[in-house]
Amino acid sequence: MAPFLVDWRKLWRGDALGVVQPTTTAEVAALLRWAHETATPVTPQGGNTGLSGGSVPGPGDAGLVLSLARMNRIRAVDPVNNTITVDAGCLLAKVQGEAEAAGRFFPLSLAAEGSCTIGGNLATNAGGTGVLRYGNARDLCLGLEVVTARGEIWDGLRGLRKDNTGYDLRDLFIGSEGTLGVITGAVLKLHPAPAARVAAFAAVATPHQALGLLQLAQNRLGPALTGFELISSLCLQLVLRHVPGARPALEAEAPWCVLIEVTDLLDEARALDALEDVLGRALEDGLVSDAAIAASIAQTKAFWALRENVSEAQGAEGKTVKHDVSVPISSIGGFLDGALAALARLHPDVRPVVFGHLGDGNIHFNVSPAAGDAGESLLARQGPINRIVHDLVAAHGGSISAEHGLGVLRRDEAEHYKTPIEMGLMRAIKRALDPIGIMNPGKLLRLEPPARP
Amino acid sequence: MAPFLVDWRKLWRGDALGVVQPTTTAEVAALLRWAHETATPVTPQGGNTGLSGGSVPGPGDAGLVLSLARMNRIRAVDPVNNTITVDAGCLLAKVQGEAEAAGRFFPLSLAAEGSCTIGGNLATNAGGTGVLRYGNARDLCLGLEVVTARGEIWDGLRGLRKDNTGYDLRDLFIGSEGTLGVITGAVLKLHPAPAARVAAFAAVATPHQALGLLQLAQNRLGPALTGFELISSLCLQLVLRHVPGARPALEAEAPWCVLIEVTDLLDEARALDALEDVLGRALEDGLVSDAAIAASIAQTKAFWALRENVSEAQGAEGKTVKHDVSVPISSIGGFLDGALAALARLHPDVRPVVFGHLGDGNIHFNVSPAAGDAGESLLARQGPINRIVHDLVAAHGGSISAEHGLGVLRRDEAEHYKTPIEMGLMRAIKRALDPIGIMNPGKLLRLEPPARP
Repeated sequence: MAPFLVDWRKLWRGDALGVVQPTTTAEVAALLRWAHETATPVTPQGGNTGLSGGSVPGPGDAGLVLSLARMNRIRAVDPVNNTITVDAGCLLAKVQGEAEAAGRFFPLSLAAEGSCTIGGNLATNAGGTGVLRYGNARDLCLGLEVVTARGEIWDGLRGLRKDNTGYDLRDLFIGSEGTLGVITGAVLKLHPAPAARVAAFAAVATPHQALGLLQLAQNRLGPALTGFELISSLCLQLVLRHVPGARPALEAEAPWCVLIEVTDLLDEARALDALEDVLGRALEDGLVSDAAIAASIAQTKAFWALRENVSEAQGAEGKTVKHDVSVPISSIGGFLDGALAALARLHPDVRPVVFGHLGDGNIHFNVSPAAGDAGESLLARQGPINRIVHDLVAAHGGSISAEHGLGVLRRDEAEHYKTPIEMGLMRAIKRALDPIGIMNPGKLLRLEPPARP
Repeated sequence: MAPFLVDWRKLWRGDALGVVQPTTTAEVAALLRWAHETATPVTPQGGNTGLSGGSVPGPGDAGLVLSLARMNRIRAVDPVNNTITVDAGCLLAKVQGEAEAAGRFFPLSLAAEGSCTIGGNLATNAGGTGVLRYGNARDLCLGLEVVTARGEIWDGLRGLRKDNTGYDLRDLFIGSEGTLGVITGAVLKLHPAPAARVAAFAAVATPHQALGLLQLAQNRLGPALTGFELISSLCLQLVLRHVPGARPALEAEAPWCVLIEVTDLLDEARALDALEDVLGRALEDGLVSDAAIAASIAQTKAFWALRENVSEAQGAEGKTVKHDVSVPISSIGGFLDGALAALARLHPDVRPVVFGHLGDGNIHFNVSPAAGDAGESLLARQGPINRIVHDLVAAHGGSISAEHGLGVLRRDEAEHYKTPIEMGLMRAIKRALDPIGIMNPGKLLRLEPPARP
């Protein structure tokens, strides 16, 4: 059972009576009926790659881990409707591959795609690098099959773009982190497969200039703009230091870089022209000091690898305090100025490792210890550092968990920032759909509100 | 009070103790607290332009109509974040206009835009002609302010692209038709304003050919394809007969036409080229027998007017039985073949008036009486005709209300087609958020399930 009881980052270890691995929706329903009758807690688990501790049971739990790993069939592909219907336990990479085999494109993409499951992606409303153009997991899902906390099968596997026949149950289960029911199947949206994706690196002096470049790119490229990632200079230094074969995209080091990607459905030359046009204007306007456009598909991949390896490279520099936050895009500059200044003032030894999906307003504001420090003292300050960053996020009307969900990591922090009215609505829904509280207990919210002073 | 007690189509007339028109969210909250304490029913009302009877009280009701008409302020425009924050009572046209004044584009567009409110659009998850590219009202909303059935104010006015901090309350209130709470404000997504929109009419022999043209257009145009509407020959005949100044787009009459629109962010010539390329290929492949591209902005508007005036023109030909259905796009041809054949066999006197948003799988399968017949006998057969059409929709995995909502018109029909498990989930949510059932009673669902044989 061991691998099912500890999360991917090895931060949370729990206990369980056993692990069950059903192969059909009917088996899941039978299991949940039994769990409901016997008040047995159930922790649904996909690829167990989550970053917030939502997919493992708690210490001392006497329940079951419900692994969806054996439910991994592709149920149907409909290229005319642009949909694919899958079991929840399918790996994300398998869904991407099946779409490609049908001449289509499934745009959800994230670092864990080789080991995470689509059910987990939906239960946590996963984000990733394709959100700017194609939306998050929620936006890519048309229908769900769910086994409720009472063991009933809700067949909402509809492949429809429009359906206004009552409450939006689909979006209620998406992002509910297994606390309301178990997603067992889904109908997902496919897109036409684009012929060309071209990436560039651009050097900017500040996040404010990056924002100016984003405005320019959005106004001139519209939906052809498919990636816009912000990367601080330290991120790149760490990748170049720790990732074998990594090479810089730009000759001179810059305080901040932007990875920008343009996609064209039919024509690589058109994508290149559009990218050159935008970067040319940005250089002229002084928004950008240097830029390099990838000369090949291999180089576009290498550019993306620089961005995607930041987290791993950071891991080689000691313990990490992570923040997965979002603010309105117009507040990105102000938020980063404030957070970097506060950290420099109050914790001058630590090193911010800042990167993220600027086009979505989503920043991974991570913190590493000083060079050579393993980070134990940093971890001891995790609470106060979280509070500095999250208070600023809240002041800018932002979110303390943009794409990673709450799990146990951010459960109480979310309660701290949300109003009692919002928490009351969430608890009313939890009680309505899972009256005895067997579904993934302790995740996303506590069943009872904490006493307030 | 009279105008508040009857719907736009004059099909439903109700009663009320009074009409209240608050001007602030705090006033709405005070009213709902009082209504909750006194168990007084409340019917929220926006522009009262709905087609399903959801915005007027029922006959003999002893409650209040809560009109949002006086809450019509634009609260904020943020062109950098691409958002606009508005009171729920703002007219849709006003929101469109404010976006335009900020150099942006708010894409929700429908026939009633001059008199419907954004709160009503969100409460019914309105669709319209921009869904193919930009999504429905749900997809255009980032945050909500809602007064709950207990009179609490939920401030969910977030302008964020990503926020995974708990249950998706926003999407639960969107489309709930005022039965869970009252939407009082919203943060809406804006888009860059496109420089050019070019439309064309294309003649096709069958809906199957229209579907082939849709595939071709999607694969070659991607997000540049912003409109794809199917129109039967009778629709055009009625518009040309009843709408002053309407002129045919194509010289010869065709059994079916498609209105296709291409948008370019920067360049009209590029939109024209793309449209010509697709239509040229479709003519070569035999998908299309004739096509006309609008030669001016005025002609593009005139082409759209042919489509948008179908409903009104149909009204001049006697009583109408309407269906607002969707099926998977791959099933459109099969559904239409089946529905037209069944109608011809069982009700040979009536005339189908078929049009809709083919790109969304959404067909308005309307029925008019024989020429010269006022339609009383048609109305008497409404139930059996609904059943023919809706049984076929259900057999194709479709929806009996794609964009108009349930209201009272489709409330019991939805219960007929949905499973008891889905209805049970919906009722559990209704009871959790509106425990004494004061919010828009009798709409969307009955509080208690009907006895099943």
